[in-house]
Amino acid sequence: MRVLGLVACFFLLISVGSADEAKPVRLMPLPANVNLSAGQGLVIQNSFSVALRGNDPHLRKAADIFLNDLRRHTGSLPLDFSVAAAPDQAQLTISVDQPSEEVQKLGEDESYTLKIDGTRADLHARTTLGAMRGLQTVLQLVEITPQGFALPALTIEDKPRFAWRGLMIDSGRHFMPLDVIRRNLDAMAAVKLNVFHWHLSENQGFRVESKKFPKLQEMGSDGLYYTQAEIRDVIAYARDRGIRVVPEFDMPGHSTAWFVGYPELASGPGPYSIERKWGIFDPAMDPTKESTYKFLDGFIGEMAALFPDQFFHIGGDEVNGKQWDANPKVQEFMHSHNLKTNADLQGYFVERVQKLVAKHGKTMEGWDEILRPNMPSSIVIQSWRGQKSLAEAAKQGYRGLLSSGYYLDLNQSTASHYVVDPMSGDAASLSDAEKDHILGGEACMWAEYVSPETIDSRIWPRMAPIAERLWSPQNVTDMNSMYDRMAHVSEWLDAYGVNHNTQYIPMLQRIAGTGDVSALKVFVDVVEPVKGYAREALAATEPTSLTPLNRVVDVARPESIKAREFAELVDAFVSGSIKPGMEAQIRSALSHWRDNDEKLQRVATQSSIVQEVAPLSQSLSSISAAGLQALDFLDRGEKAPKEWETQQLAAMQQAFQPKGQVMLMVVPSVQKLIQASAGDTPTTLSIPKAGND
Amino acid sequence: MRVLGLVACFFLLISVGSADEAKPVRLMPLPANVNLSAGQGLVIQNSFSVALRGNDPHLRKAADIFLNDLRRHTGSLPLDFSVAAAPDQAQLTISVDQPSEEVQKLGEDESYTLKIDGTRADLHARTTLGAMRGLQTVLQLVEITPQGFALPALTIEDKPRFAWRGLMIDSGRHFMPLDVIRRNLDAMAAVKLNVFHWHLSENQGFRVESKKFPKLQEMGSDGLYYTQAEIRDVIAYARDRGIRVVPEFDMPGHSTAWFVGYPELASGPGPYSIERKWGIFDPAMDPTKESTYKFLDGFIGEMAALFPDQFFHIGGDEVNGKQWDANPKVQEFMHSHNLKTNADLQGYFVERVQKLVAKHGKTMEGWDEILRPNMPSSIVIQSWRGQKSLAEAAKQGYRGLLSSGYYLDLNQSTASHYVVDPMSGDAASLSDAEKDHILGGEACMWAEYVSPETIDSRIWPRMAPIAERLWSPQNVTDMNSMYDRMAHVSEWLDAYGVNHNTQYIPMLQRIAGTGDVSALKVFVDVVEPVKGYAREALAATEPTSLTPLNRVVDVARPESIKAREFAELVDAFVSGSIKPGMEAQIRSALSHWRDNDEKLQRVATQSSIVQEVAPLSQSLSSISAAGLQALDFLDRGEKAPKEWETQQLAAMQQAFQPKGQVMLMVVPSVQKLIQASAGDTPTTLSIPKAGND
Repeated sequence: MRVLGLVACFFLLISVGSADEAKPVRLMPLPANVNLSAGQGLVIQNSFSVALRGNDPHLRKAADIFLNDLRRHTGSLPLDFSVAAAPDQAQLTISVDQPSEEVQKLGEDESYTLKIDGTRADLHARTTLGAMRGLQTVLQLVEITPQGFALPALTIEDKPRFAWRGLMIDSGRHFMPLDVIRRNLDAMAAVKLNVFHWHLSENQGFRVESKKFPKLQEMGSDGLYYTQAEIRDVIAYARDRGIRVVPEFDMPGHSTAWFVGYPELASGPGPYSIERKWGIFDPAMDPTKESTYKFLDGFIGEMAALFPDQFFHIGGDEVNGKQWDANPKVQEFMHSHNLKTNADLQGYFVERVQKLVAKHGKTMEGWDEILRPNMPSSIVIQSWRGQKSLAEAAKQGYRGLLSSGYYLDLNQSTASHYVVDPMSGDAASLSDAEKDHILGGEACMWAEYVSPETIDSRIWPRMAPIAERLWSPQNVTDMNSMYDRMAHVSEWLDAYGVNHNTQYIPMLQRIAGTGDVSALKVFVDVVEPVKGYAREALAATEPTSLTPLNRVVDVARPESIKAREFAELVDAFVSGSIKPGMEAQIRSALSHWRDNDEKLQRVATQSSIVQEVAPLSQSLSSISAAGLQALDFLDRGEKAPKEWETQQLAAMQQAFQPKGQVMLMVVPSVQKLIQASAGDTPTTLSIPKAGND
Repeated sequence: MRVLGLVACFFLLISVGSADEAKPVRLMPLPANVNLSAGQGLVIQNSFSVALRGNDPHLRKAADIFLNDLRRHTGSLPLDFSVAAAPDQAQLTISVDQPSEEVQKLGEDESYTLKIDGTRADLHARTTLGAMRGLQTVLQLVEITPQGFALPALTIEDKPRFAWRGLMIDSGRHFMPLDVIRRNLDAMAAVKLNVFHWHLSENQGFRVESKKFPKLQEMGSDGLYYTQAEIRDVIAYARDRGIRVVPEFDMPGHSTAWFVGYPELASGPGPYSIERKWGIFDPAMDPTKESTYKFLDGFIGEMAALFPDQFFHIGGDEVNGKQWDANPKVQEFMHSHNLKTNADLQGYFVERVQKLVAKHGKTMEGWDEILRPNMPSSIVIQSWRGQKSLAEAAKQGYRGLLSSGYYLDLNQSTASHYVVDPMSGDAASLSDAEKDHILGGEACMWAEYVSPETIDSRIWPRMAPIAERLWSPQNVTDMNSMYDRMAHVSEWLDAYGVNHNTQYIPMLQRIAGTGDVSALKVFVDVVEPVKGYAREALAATEPTSLTPLNRVVDVARPESIKAREFAELVDAFVSGSIKPGMEAQIRSALSHWRDNDEKLQRVATQSSIVQEVAPLSQSLSSISAAGLQALDFLDRGEKAPKEWETQQLAAMQQAFQPKGQVMLMVVPSVQKLIQASAGDTPTTLSIPKAGND
C-alpha cells in the first residue's frame, strides 16, 4: 500500500459546545483529514440512539459494541442507549455501502467519513470495517463539556496508510489467560489495529488444543493452553472488532514443547521436557524425515481449519543447527541432497512446509529467515531485522511487514518506536510498485519478562503511537503532539480494563507492604527497566519461566513520564529558553527527590524487594543535591569549579549504572545542569552497557 | 448460635522474620485466638508447595484456589507453586477430618487451627469448609519482609460466632454482569462470608431464565438476565469458596416485571411494562386465584431444582395493597375467608407459598412481614426492621438474621455498621435457647443507585468490618483497630479485581475531562453522598433505572477517609490532647482546601458534572479559611468574638447543606475549631434533613 501523502494538522483546535477555551484534538491515531466546524457540538443525551443503513449482522454487532463502549466512556447504564429503527430518531446514523467480508481480508477498504454538527452525527463507510474504524473515532471524540458528554462539530475523512497494522502477543513463553487477550483486543480496536498475531508455540509451551495430536498440549503446556472452543471465541471476538487473528506455530526451531509429547519430530534423541530457561536452544524438527511432514500435514490441516485467516505464520527463525550438526543421518541427507549449509537445510524444510500450508488453502508467513530463492511470491515476510531486509524482499517481489523497531519487550522510549517507519531507510528508495509490497508493521510483545499482571504495562500506552505510525499519514511526526495525545489515550484506555495505569499502585503497595506508598512511588516514577536484552545480562541468577515477575523492575514503566518531563524542563533551561517558574519547578523536583530517600530507606528495611533498589534511591538523593548546587552556582552567576564538576560527572556515571535491573532516568538531565553550571556545553549521557549487577 | 465469649487481642504485635519493628496483626475478621511465637516466620519460596491430608475433591479445589490467590498476593506466576503429594516436601500441610457436605449446609463446622513456624505451616480443620476459612487467614498473613514474602510465626485457633454471614446483592433493580458477581464472591470469601443472597426479581427486572415460563425473562428483563447455565456456574464458583447461594424471588409485591409476560398473575388489569422508577408500587400477585399457586408451584419447582441450597427466599415485603383494595373479587375473597386486613391476605398468600416451598424440599426464608402465627417453626426471618423484631421472632421459636443496620446502599459510616450486633438491643435479654435462633446477619446492597462500575465501592471496604462483626468474638469492638485493619484489607482486596480503589481515578478523569485530576480529587476526597434515602428526596428530576450513575455523588466514597482522619485530629486538638505537629497538620489541610477552589473552578467551567458541585468547593474554601482564623485566635490566646463565631456557625450550617447530592464532611470538624476558638464547648453538627437541592 502506498504512502497516501495526505496532510494532517497536529495542533487542531476544537471548540466544543459553548466552552471558551479551545482544546487540541486528542485523537490517536490522527485521521488523514480533520476539518473543524464552528458552533455547537453534539450533546450525548440519555436517549442517544444509533440508526443503521445497511443490512449486515456485523454492522449491528459493531453498533452494539459501540454503544457499550460509549457507556464505558460516559459511565452510563446498559439501557440508556439503543439502536433505533428510524434514522430521523437517531443522533448517530451509520451507513455502509457493503458488508465487510465474512472472513476479514487483508486490504479491505477501511476508509470512512464522519460529519458531526449540533444536531446529529453521520458516519459513512464503504464497508462495515470502515464503519468500525469510524466508530472508534467517534468514541475518542467523546468528552465532558459544560453541556454534558458531547462530540465536537467537525468533518473527518480518514483512511489507513497501511493495510496491515498488528500486535503480536507471545502466549508461548508465559501463558496469557483469555481475559488478558480480550482486553487487549478491545484496546487494539480502539487504536484501529487490525491484526492480532498470536504466537502460540515456543520452547516453553505449546498453547493450543490439538485434537489430532493431543500430546502437544497435554505434555507440552503444563496444562496452560487454549481449547479450540476458546480459540474460536477469541477469533469471533476479534472479528467483531475488525481484527484478523493470524496464528503462529514456530518451526523448525523454538519447538522444544512439541517434542515432549512427540520426540520423534526432533533431530536429536529424546526425551524432552518443557524448557524453563530463556534463549535459543538446540532442539529442532528433523527436516530429513518424511514422517515430520506427514505430522505437519495433519497438524497444519487441523489448525488451518481452526483459524479462518488467509495467513498462516510458521515462524522459521533462529535455528542454531546444533542438533543437525550432531545427527549423522541429517548430515547424510544434506550431502545426498546437495544442501551445503544448515541455512540450506532450513530452506528445504520451509519450502516443504510452504507446500503444506498452500495445500490447506493458506498463505505462508514467516520471519526474515524464510525468504529463500524458490519461494512463491505469495508469501509474507515479517522482518525482525529491519527496513533493509524488508526492502530486499520487496525488490524480489515479496510482501513484507516491519517489526524491527517495534519490539515492546525491549523497554525503549515511545519516541524511539515512533520514528521507525516501514518506508524509511532502504525502503524509501523503492519504486512505487515495490513499495506496494510493504504491507505495514507489527509490534511484538515477547513474553520472557511479562506476566498476566504486567503485560498491559509493556504494551500500553506505547502501542498507540506505533498504531498511529501505521495508520496516519507519513508526515504525522510531531513528537510533542504524540506525547500529549498518548497521555490522553493512555487514560482513556482504562475504560477497556487494560491495567497499565490501574495496577501500578496495587503493585507498589504489595512491594512496600504498607498502604503508604508515597516514597516508593516518587522513586519508581523516575526509574525504568534496563533496556534491550540487558535484563538477562544483569541477572544475578539465571531467570527462568518460573521466576516471579514482582520486583521493582516489573512495576517500573518502560518509559518514565516524570523523567521525560524533567528532561524537557532541563533541556529548555540549559538551552537558555527559560520561562518564569521554570527554575522553581526544577528546584522543587530536585528537593523532592533529595528528601525522599530517608523515607524510602525506612520502607526498604521492611521489604526485600525495595531493598534491592535502595542504593539507587540514595543515588537519586545525592545527584539531586548536586543538581541543586549546580542551580546555586548558576543563580550566583558563579562558574562551578572544574574539580567539583569532574567529581560530580563521575558520580553521575555511577548513578546511571543499573541496580536491581532498573535505571535512574533523571541522571542525564542532572548531568546537563552540572555541565551548564561549569560553563560547559551539556552532553547527553548514554545508557550504560550491560555489566554485572 | 451462642456467643462464644472468647477473648481476642486487638493490638497483637507480630514480629516477622528478623525485622526490628513489630507490626500489628492486620487480619479482618480477627480470629478468636491468636498467639504469636518468637522467632522467624515462614518465607514463601518459589517452590512453595501444599500437601493435602484428606481425600476430598473440594479440598483439592480449595488448595488450587489458594495457590492462585497466593500468586495474586505475591505477584508470582502460574507455575511457581504446586500441590505436592508428600507432606514432608510441602511448606504448608492442610489436613481435614472429613469433607464438607456436597451441598454446603447451614451450621457446618467452620473452625480451624493454624500453626506457623520458621520451617512449615500446618492447617487443621474438622471439615473442608474450615480449611477454606483457615486458608483465607493464611493469605491475609502474607506480607513482604526483609526475607521476601513470608508468614509470621504464630498459632491461631478460630471459629465463627455466627453460622450465617451474608451479603445480599440486588440484581433486580440494576442488572449486575457475571464478572461483578464473581469478583465479589472472591472478596466475600476473603473475609469469611458464607452466604450470597441473590435478589433476582424486582419491579424493574426479572433476572433468571425460566424454561417453564420463558416470558418472565423474555419480556421482564430487557434482555438482561442470567441463563440457567450461568446460574449453575455461579453456584459452583461460590461452592468452591465455601459460600452458599440463596436465591430470592420477591412476592407477592415487588413483582411488576413478572406481570409483563404473565399479567394474569397480577391483582389488577394489565398490560404491564417493566417499571423504570424507584419505590413501592401497586402491582401485586393475586392471592385469591388458584392459578397463581399453580404457576408458583411450577416456578418454585423449577428454581428449587436450579438452586441446591436448603433455603428459598420469597421476599414477602412491602405490599401497599392498592390493587387488592381496588379489586372486587379480592374483596369478596377476603370477606368469604374472614381475612380482615391486607396483612391477613398477605399472610394467607405466604402460608400457601410456604407449603409450595416445602413441597419442593426447601425451607422458606423471607423478610419480617412473612412472620405469621400459622407458620412452621422451620422458616427463617430476615429482619430489615431491627433486633426487636428479631428477638420477637426468636421468642416465638423462629430463626432469624439481622439486616437492619447493615444496609450498604444508605452510605453510612463503617462505625455505624460496626456497632450493630445481632445480639444487642432486645436480643441481648433472650434466653440461651432463644439466642440459638439468631443465626447471624446479612449486609444488603440494594441497587437503585449502583451500576456495575460503582457497586464495588459501595460494598467494599465497609463490608469487611460487618463480616468481622459476624465472625469474630462479640468483644472485638475497638474502633481504631477496626479502621486501621479495614484500610489494609481494602488495599489487599484489590488483588481480587474488586474496583473500589482502582476505579476511583479513572472515574475522576472522565468527569474532569483531563488527566490532571488533582484539584478534583482533593475535593471529592472530603465529600460523601447524602445519607439514607435523601438521594431521592434531593433529586431535581425523578431518578429512574435509566439515569446515568456517573456524577460526583456516584464517585464519592460512602465514607471519606480524609474527613475521618481530619476529625480525629481536630477532636484530639480541641479536647486538649495536643501532640507536636498536630496543629501544623490541621493548618496544612485547611490551607490546602482553602487554596484548592481556584483550580477546581477552572475544571468546573469545562464539565457539567463538576459544575454541579462547584458551589461546595467554594464552601470548602471559605470554611477552611474560617478554620485557619480560628487557629489564629487560639494561637494568640485570644478569644474569638461572639459575633464572628455566630456568623461562622451560620456559615457552617450553610456549608453542610448538600449540593449535587453530596455533603462536605469536614464541616463538623471546622465548626469545632470555631467553637473552641470562642471558648465554647465544641458540639457535633448533625447531618441535615433532606431538603430541596
